[in-house]
Amino acid sequence: MATIMDNKIIITIGREYGSGGHEVGKRLAAKLGIAFYDDELIQEAAKRTGYNIDYVKANDEKAPEVSIGSYFSGLDIYHSTPYDNIQFEEARLIRDIASRGSCVIIGHAADFILKDETCINIFLFAPMKDRIERKMALLAPEEAADMTEAAMEKIMKQKDKQRRRFYEFYTDNKWGAKESYDLSINTSRTGLDGAVSIIETYIEASKGKDLLSDM
Amino acid sequence: MATIMDNKIIITIGREYGSGGHEVGKRLAAKLGIAFYDDELIQEAAKRTGYNIDYVKANDEKAPEVSIGSYFSGLDIYHSTPYDNIQFEEARLIRDIASRGSCVIIGHAADFILKDETCINIFLFAPMKDRIERKMALLAPEEAADMTEAAMEKIMKQKDKQRRRFYEFYTDNKWGAKESYDLSINTSRTGLDGAVSIIETYIEASKGKDLLSDM
Repeated sequence: MATIMDNKIIITIGREYGSGGHEVGKRLAAKLGIAFYDDELIQEAAKRTGYNIDYVKANDEKAPEVSIGSYFSGLDIYHSTPYDNIQFEEARLIRDIASRGSCVIIGHAADFILKDETCINIFLFAPMKDRIERKMALLAPEEAADMTEAAMEKIMKQKDKQRRRFYEFYTDNKWGAKESYDLSINTSRTGLDGAVSIIETYIEASKGKDLLSDM
Repeated sequence: MATIMDNKIIITIGREYGSGGHEVGKRLAAKLGIAFYDDELIQEAAKRTGYNIDYVKANDEKAPEVSIGSYFSGLDIYHSTPYDNIQFEEARLIRDIASRGSCVIIGHAADFILKDETCINIFLFAPMKDRIERKMALLAPEEAADMTEAAMEKIMKQKDKQRRRFYEFYTDNKWGAKESYDLSINTSRTGLDGAVSIIETYIEASKGKDLLSDM
């Protein structure tokens, strides 16, 4: 049974779009005084692959758009796509980062990529209407003028679908299913700082503990 | 958006068999100094229905064994079974308990029965092998002699299936899906006292908070 016995702490955070994953991870890393990676992965992957940063950003956390046809088209090898190059480089990068020391990593299937490390894997979610409300409130005035709740809902569903497709294309796990994570938090009941506190308590609680510790 | 503004705290705990739900709930209620209900529901339901306690216990948290045939057999009303009488009485009881004041309620679809109250709904789970290990370690020596891990796994799967069928028969939600709860905790990483601390932190974090509190 995996327990956190040493001082290295690796936290991965999967998240529904708008549930506050980026911000929770950033605040958690700041409180713990450890490294934080989200868009930093994109910049580094751009450097390593040689693709320009906008191209990497556009293809970050996406699965290739393969049709069923391409799998059964008689090719006897799987041709890796630019998507794959980006994802594989990001995966290598995530392993490098984790080997360096404590960190918080957002998304990018880091929980699966680091499945042989002792990570704490978190998933943040919230009901759609609450996430829409948050994202609408975060818009700059000039963006808000052109945005409706219906349009925001569409963006939200698209982003979540993209993340799910990416995660399930590159891993053996189900995105957002509680079994894939150690802790799943509905952030609409706790706010972002509340979620940070809950994760901190989880980290403390999990030091050297298992189901036989205090049964 | 539901927030906990008043002093009444109602915690419901759904749980996989062997993940420590009963014990976590009991310790949490003791720490918070509030009422605790699990088997207490069975005793009370026996009194109210007039069924004997062993019969209620045997049918507690079970769905009726209806075949597809019975739904399409030409009957124009749904005949309630003894199962239903027990479940409906327990549901009434759960509503009475919640109206009285703060409490922790284990299982019995309390989260769904109390969906119009402001509850905090928790789900506890753990990998099968860890739950087997815990349940084996909890056996009395004379029971342990007659039990194998394979037999324990069979019991465990049966219990979880029963709880799932019960929950999904009587509610509109999916048992153990993170969306049905506010917080899902893998107890094999935290032990039972760790899970208690995490739930306590959640309760504190959720007081008057929502996704717009501190975005």
